[in-house]
Amino acid sequence: MDFLSVLRRGCAFAMLLLTFTVPSAQGEEPAMEAVGLTPGSVEHARTLRDRALDGTMAWDIVEALTTEVGPRLAGSASEARAREWAVQRLQRMGFANVRIEPFEIPGWTRGAERAELLAPFPQPLAITSLGGSVATPEAGIAAELVAFESLQALRAAAPGSLSGKIAYVSHAMQRSQDGSSYGFYGELRRVGASVAAEKGALAIVIRSIGTDDHRFPHTGQMRYAEGVPKIPAAALSNPDADQIERILGRGLPLRLHLLLRPQSAPSAPSGNVIAEIVGRERPEEVVIIGGHLDSWDLGTGAIDDGAGVAITTAAAKMILDSGKQPRRTIRLVLWGAEEVGLLGGYEYLNAHREQLGQHVIGTESDFGAERIWKMTAQVSPAGQTVVDVMAELLAPLGIAPGDMNTSGSGPDLVPMVAAGLPSLRLVQNGMDYFDLHHTHDDTLDKIDPEALDQNVAAYVVFAWLAADSTAHFRR
Amino acid sequence: MDFLSVLRRGCAFAMLLLTFTVPSAQGEEPAMEAVGLTPGSVEHARTLRDRALDGTMAWDIVEALTTEVGPRLAGSASEARAREWAVQRLQRMGFANVRIEPFEIPGWTRGAERAELLAPFPQPLAITSLGGSVATPEAGIAAELVAFESLQALRAAAPGSLSGKIAYVSHAMQRSQDGSSYGFYGELRRVGASVAAEKGALAIVIRSIGTDDHRFPHTGQMRYAEGVPKIPAAALSNPDADQIERILGRGLPLRLHLLLRPQSAPSAPSGNVIAEIVGRERPEEVVIIGGHLDSWDLGTGAIDDGAGVAITTAAAKMILDSGKQPRRTIRLVLWGAEEVGLLGGYEYLNAHREQLGQHVIGTESDFGAERIWKMTAQVSPAGQTVVDVMAELLAPLGIAPGDMNTSGSGPDLVPMVAAGLPSLRLVQNGMDYFDLHHTHDDTLDKIDPEALDQNVAAYVVFAWLAADSTAHFRR
Repeated sequence: MDFLSVLRRGCAFAMLLLTFTVPSAQGEEPAMEAVGLTPGSVEHARTLRDRALDGTMAWDIVEALTTEVGPRLAGSASEARAREWAVQRLQRMGFANVRIEPFEIPGWTRGAERAELLAPFPQPLAITSLGGSVATPEAGIAAELVAFESLQALRAAAPGSLSGKIAYVSHAMQRSQDGSSYGFYGELRRVGASVAAEKGALAIVIRSIGTDDHRFPHTGQMRYAEGVPKIPAAALSNPDADQIERILGRGLPLRLHLLLRPQSAPSAPSGNVIAEIVGRERPEEVVIIGGHLDSWDLGTGAIDDGAGVAITTAAAKMILDSGKQPRRTIRLVLWGAEEVGLLGGYEYLNAHREQLGQHVIGTESDFGAERIWKMTAQVSPAGQTVVDVMAELLAPLGIAPGDMNTSGSGPDLVPMVAAGLPSLRLVQNGMDYFDLHHTHDDTLDKIDPEALDQNVAAYVVFAWLAADSTAHFRR
Repeated sequence: MDFLSVLRRGCAFAMLLLTFTVPSAQGEEPAMEAVGLTPGSVEHARTLRDRALDGTMAWDIVEALTTEVGPRLAGSASEARAREWAVQRLQRMGFANVRIEPFEIPGWTRGAERAELLAPFPQPLAITSLGGSVATPEAGIAAELVAFESLQALRAAAPGSLSGKIAYVSHAMQRSQDGSSYGFYGELRRVGASVAAEKGALAIVIRSIGTDDHRFPHTGQMRYAEGVPKIPAAALSNPDADQIERILGRGLPLRLHLLLRPQSAPSAPSGNVIAEIVGRERPEEVVIIGGHLDSWDLGTGAIDDGAGVAITTAAAKMILDSGKQPRRTIRLVLWGAEEVGLLGGYEYLNAHREQLGQHVIGTESDFGAERIWKMTAQVSPAGQTVVDVMAELLAPLGIAPGDMNTSGSGPDLVPMVAAGLPSLRLVQNGMDYFDLHHTHDDTLDKIDPEALDQNVAAYVVFAWLAADSTAHFRR
């Protein structure tokens, strides 16, 4: 957005503010009426926002989920426990239509994992399997390491040039507030194994897709390409990758022993947990919020995504307890099996394809537990009227409107957004997100309760206004 | 030290400064002459100090040690490689009398280690064996956890009250600049197992003696008391200890599975590595500096104590290369087997007891890689004259004189100091030291090269002035 449009939008907000604080003012009222928003509705959003800033139950929810369930690997018994935990808690909170929508996913569990440099300087290395990796033989693999400075450099290697070797690939991921660098650098994790296998490699070891300098390797899902041998894939912590690169810098050949013993199963149970506040006028029209219930197995999934579960559940609960029912239904979806390929999102779309047109707008909280600083959306002009009201109420929280032609939504809504669901994104500050993401260190102590409350304040504004309006958000 | 004495000392420094910068000034010169320090000698210390601030080889040394050797557990093949590495490097640097003084120590290696909460909320925990711990049976121990908020509370438990249980002990260690809280809180690690065993416990698990909030358990040596059963002992990371305590707070019984498989051996090789700059007038009189070569096995021993090895080696090398030989011998000792009980220090005293009186003063760098902020000493009045000159030269580095009745020295000199060796301590800022100490995360990337250089500047001043003086430092 350029400066002039920021200014224009700013003026529009000021006028909206006048509309509701000075009853006699003219201007935006007809537009507001056209999307069903009354001054009372906007005032209710403001009240809920301020109440959230005074403190919410979000911290208690993420505390309970990470403590009473802990790690929640997709398809595992702990993810199943998380679903039971959520159903009990949501029922106790008083939500309507609390249920599990179960589905099956491919099973994968980690098993033993270990790496040692055998030469030139024998020492252990901090490593973890990438999600979905095949196993090494029981005795591991011992082979020379061949290094590449990027996925692009690996791609440029000659076919067969890595026969009998282990590929090592580095990169230079940097912090970014919006997390956008994850898309680019994360590709190495997602596709690196098959690229290395095409060159004949026995295995691939990558520098973690992460920005911290602690000895925590970052896991995360990878995929094998069709028609290429499946080779084991793992990530080294950043300090261990530094160590490898210092040794490479001495011009001596490196020999690595790699043992990864994950196990796959044809099928494992997962599911989405759903709870609702049924709309008073248009119960069949649905506004979706939520976070994902599964986590990687290394940490307790506090920032990824216990925080998102907590923020959106707390926001929905505030609306439930507010004494006012929105026109439309607010559907809280705690997604299953997000980490292993957005499987909950795809399953939901399959199960609800017939009602897709009644899903008016959605968003997901899945980028940690820091404050929201930006809102983006891609909606119709009528929808933009509602989004502008949201923006006005969010500005005092330090949330500025961003690109209004970007359909951010959170990962689990990607399948539905691709199928036409309008979406909005409340963008959290992600500068430090990839310090913790997918590591052992993703634990409760990393979360600031006040930042959680700021998130709840934003979600409550979004959910209430989207659900209490009659706007068609589809472009 | 009170304010008036600070002021008095400050005035003495100002007079000293005048003494050497304004040749005609009177005052401290007779005292200086009495301890053999000439204006040229002081000027040489100043020159070396400033040269150090321009950059030293300390970073290269710790980079090489942590990269080319890596972890260096006392008694291991890697500690032996560290000795060979040091001998080659010290010889290549041009030091005299480079040698290993070998000795034998009890052997201990880590082996597999794992802990899982079995009930009420099953989940894995980040744990590590304490150094010297005995093993659990091969299948581990599964038992109820009984919690104590401190070592004092554990001591107060009734005999037999922990029969068939695992003791868990917490504490509230806080950061301190001088690291003095380690003595108090560290006692839990050192003696906790035998205190728990006296109450009948099967094993003990403690909150790590550390100040970080990462999922790194801190290891460190423990000891068994005579006549008490030896039980396995381990530490949980701080976030895992928080998790245990949150669950305890729910009033539900905890059941833990603990598997620790360290192995002990009757004997393993260790040794001190020694290198010298031989004194020009009094070669038999020795000033000792150094750090310890061994490290715990989890990290690469960068701050503990690759940094100390690097700082003191770089300082000695600067003096060696300065073209001036001090009156006395500077002996660089890279101590072996410090972590497992200051064994190198005791062995050195045994081997050199006859020459103890010729060891004029000593110190060790073993408190990380941060800047020095304070100097303490316990020396004779003549020695204090030299220490005051040191203090004058160190003040511009941000190093203030502290208690002059405290015989700090670094751990490996403790046996010799107890036997009468005068000592001085250049106290590093330890606020963050126990974030990394004895963890996987003690790696090179945590070290700031400029802070290392500041340390070298201080050690070069100390070593040169102590060795070029004729002062008797003994009280």
